[in-house]
Amino acid sequence: MTWIEDAEFTPDKPFGPQTLPYGVLVTGNGPVVAVRVGRHALPLRGIAGELGPRLAELISGDSLDPLLAAGRDAWRELRERLTGIVTADRAPSGAELVRTDWHTLSMPFTVGDYVDFFASRHHAENAGRILARGSAPLPENWTHLPVGYHGRSGTVHVSGTDVHRPSSQRKAAGDAHPAFGPTRRLDFEAEVGFVCGGEAAAQIPTSEFADHVFGVALVNDWSARDVQAWESKPLGPFLAKSFATSIAGWITPLEALEEARIAVPPPEQPLQQYLVEHEPWGLDLRLEVRCNETLLSQPRFADMYWSPAQQLAHMTVGGAPARPGDLFASGTVSGPERDQRGCLLELTWGGSDPITLSDGEQRTFLQDGDRVTLSGSAPGPGGSVVGLGEVTGTVLAAARR
Amino acid sequence: MTWIEDAEFTPDKPFGPQTLPYGVLVTGNGPVVAVRVGRHALPLRGIAGELGPRLAELISGDSLDPLLAAGRDAWRELRERLTGIVTADRAPSGAELVRTDWHTLSMPFTVGDYVDFFASRHHAENAGRILARGSAPLPENWTHLPVGYHGRSGTVHVSGTDVHRPSSQRKAAGDAHPAFGPTRRLDFEAEVGFVCGGEAAAQIPTSEFADHVFGVALVNDWSARDVQAWESKPLGPFLAKSFATSIAGWITPLEALEEARIAVPPPEQPLQQYLVEHEPWGLDLRLEVRCNETLLSQPRFADMYWSPAQQLAHMTVGGAPARPGDLFASGTVSGPERDQRGCLLELTWGGSDPITLSDGEQRTFLQDGDRVTLSGSAPGPGGSVVGLGEVTGTVLAAARR
Repeated sequence: MTWIEDAEFTPDKPFGPQTLPYGVLVTGNGPVVAVRVGRHALPLRGIAGELGPRLAELISGDSLDPLLAAGRDAWRELRERLTGIVTADRAPSGAELVRTDWHTLSMPFTVGDYVDFFASRHHAENAGRILARGSAPLPENWTHLPVGYHGRSGTVHVSGTDVHRPSSQRKAAGDAHPAFGPTRRLDFEAEVGFVCGGEAAAQIPTSEFADHVFGVALVNDWSARDVQAWESKPLGPFLAKSFATSIAGWITPLEALEEARIAVPPPEQPLQQYLVEHEPWGLDLRLEVRCNETLLSQPRFADMYWSPAQQLAHMTVGGAPARPGDLFASGTVSGPERDQRGCLLELTWGGSDPITLSDGEQRTFLQDGDRVTLSGSAPGPGGSVVGLGEVTGTVLAAARR
Repeated sequence: MTWIEDAEFTPDKPFGPQTLPYGVLVTGNGPVVAVRVGRHALPLRGIAGELGPRLAELISGDSLDPLLAAGRDAWRELRERLTGIVTADRAPSGAELVRTDWHTLSMPFTVGDYVDFFASRHHAENAGRILARGSAPLPENWTHLPVGYHGRSGTVHVSGTDVHRPSSQRKAAGDAHPAFGPTRRLDFEAEVGFVCGGEAAAQIPTSEFADHVFGVALVNDWSARDVQAWESKPLGPFLAKSFATSIAGWITPLEALEEARIAVPPPEQPLQQYLVEHEPWGLDLRLEVRCNETLLSQPRFADMYWSPAQQLAHMTVGGAPARPGDLFASGTVSGPERDQRGCLLELTWGGSDPITLSDGEQRTFLQDGDRVTLSGSAPGPGGSVVGLGEVTGTVLAAARR
């Protein structure tokens, strides 16, 4: 038993000492960097004296930005020190635990560029079958490179932020003309995001992934499917995605996911050298998607075709550096089974096959008032479980200017 | 004659008192905000005492960021004060002119999100004819909305920054398999960029364009056409564009372009209400594109189908706010004539019809060592000309890690 009196802070619980995610807690004294311990958070500024001046400087601001920039040695050292502190018998001077359910989290870092991939074969094939009937379900390039595109970093919001139903031009398959108005096909996408850190660098080999990725956070890439269908040719999604992207407030350090590393499936095409993985960077993350109280789906990140290390290698191979604060997400995580699909487009097969919620209501796409929550976990050391911070958001009616 | 002894600083020259663009000059004392007067720049920190404390605070840092955030009233007031100062008989205390050709400019502001449009009908049709042979040259949505997508803000570089030829996966039309290597079809795109400022806002009506756009800067959206052809389906360009985008170091205030305002061509489809312009925001900007010493093209921004106010209205109508520092560019500016085309893809018709430079060499796409320079001007008050700052960059051989 440590000095932390919290029944959830034990190695058999998701937020035990094996996890220790970082977030930024909103307190009466402003936002503070904190580490999560069970149902509590430990603000780090209070125990800065225990960390030494170099580490203390990295955690004394109002965001994780300095820590992201500091690089892997600092991440390791801080995690080691914190592990010692939270598992000690006695509280260090200045330690003050706060209940996480009594506080909100603020956006934990400043997002540089935000890139969204399309790395699940099941998702890409399903989407192809639903949206591009008659064509081959996978684009020709798909098995050769991790397809991705840039999203809008200015609308990446922390979990808990409400999302207004966006209005834009949309045109359903049967419509003669486009119309303007609130989307009728609002969807979520269950994704896993990777937060870059360390020195800005281009051409990052898969073997240096851990030097440039600070941690992992679940992401909901809200999508307006009717807008997307109308606007995306030839330059990709724009307003269909730019209105909001939600990210978990607790960032799980990559180091906490060492036990979750697994190989991605064998490639179906010979890989270009820069995409070859010599050490596995697939991750055995198990996701859960809920709408209101209903568990809709349990996608497994283990089913992804492209690993995040391959995604980072591809993103930077052309010369664009990954900078601290850059965020990339995997794209919708979907598995082979129906209850492993990561978005309503797939779960309801383009709206043709509604799902039933536990209150008996049906859904094809999201209604105003619906709350979507992604959560997840990964195997931790010694049979433990590493909890991934959840990302949740409620749909509000379209905003009027 | 004013106190500024510079034959280029007269109303009949492009950088006379009617223009007064802002930039950030690299000096021995670090970067300073400056205004351009003819061949000289006037660092504003030195004359801060003449501006009053509120304006002085906006220009005393090392970027235009605080000025962008300050909003239109501050932009107007500063421009008015500077106009008075630079046209006075006597130099204000602390004024120190520096030669622009003796100094470099640094990136003048922190780019938030970068969006690239596709707003020239001539460019869109030419690109469609060259790249999607057999299909209709314009996508169905094109006359209904300004097609756009997000680019990479972290690789927006100031004019003068060299650009390494990017390496990535590419596949030409005749190739059986994709290959990895330096692009063989490196191109420029002559574009006009718009720098956002003022209060972050969504759903910006076309009538409020000037409240949210600080100024205008030429942009070269470097493009790797073989990479683009291979990667872009279905989510749009990614590595084909993300390696570099160049922007002029001098930002022309929107206020200096009042005389350049013209109507865009009448729409071919009924416009959704949010895209209707009650006051014209087309701009009569005349561009020049040079490769090395050869004038390749003279695109006219007057030929654009969608105005920048329509672009901003569309970008924000779904709920994404435009923040100070967000940048959006028009897409390649092309006119109906061959010598008005804004990229090599069009000028050489996909590489099938090479152009000849003044030294007798031929080009289909760019070679290492080529220098591409965009410059431009606009009609100013009383028959004067407003010069647009140039954007230049030299192609270097592919970088090796």
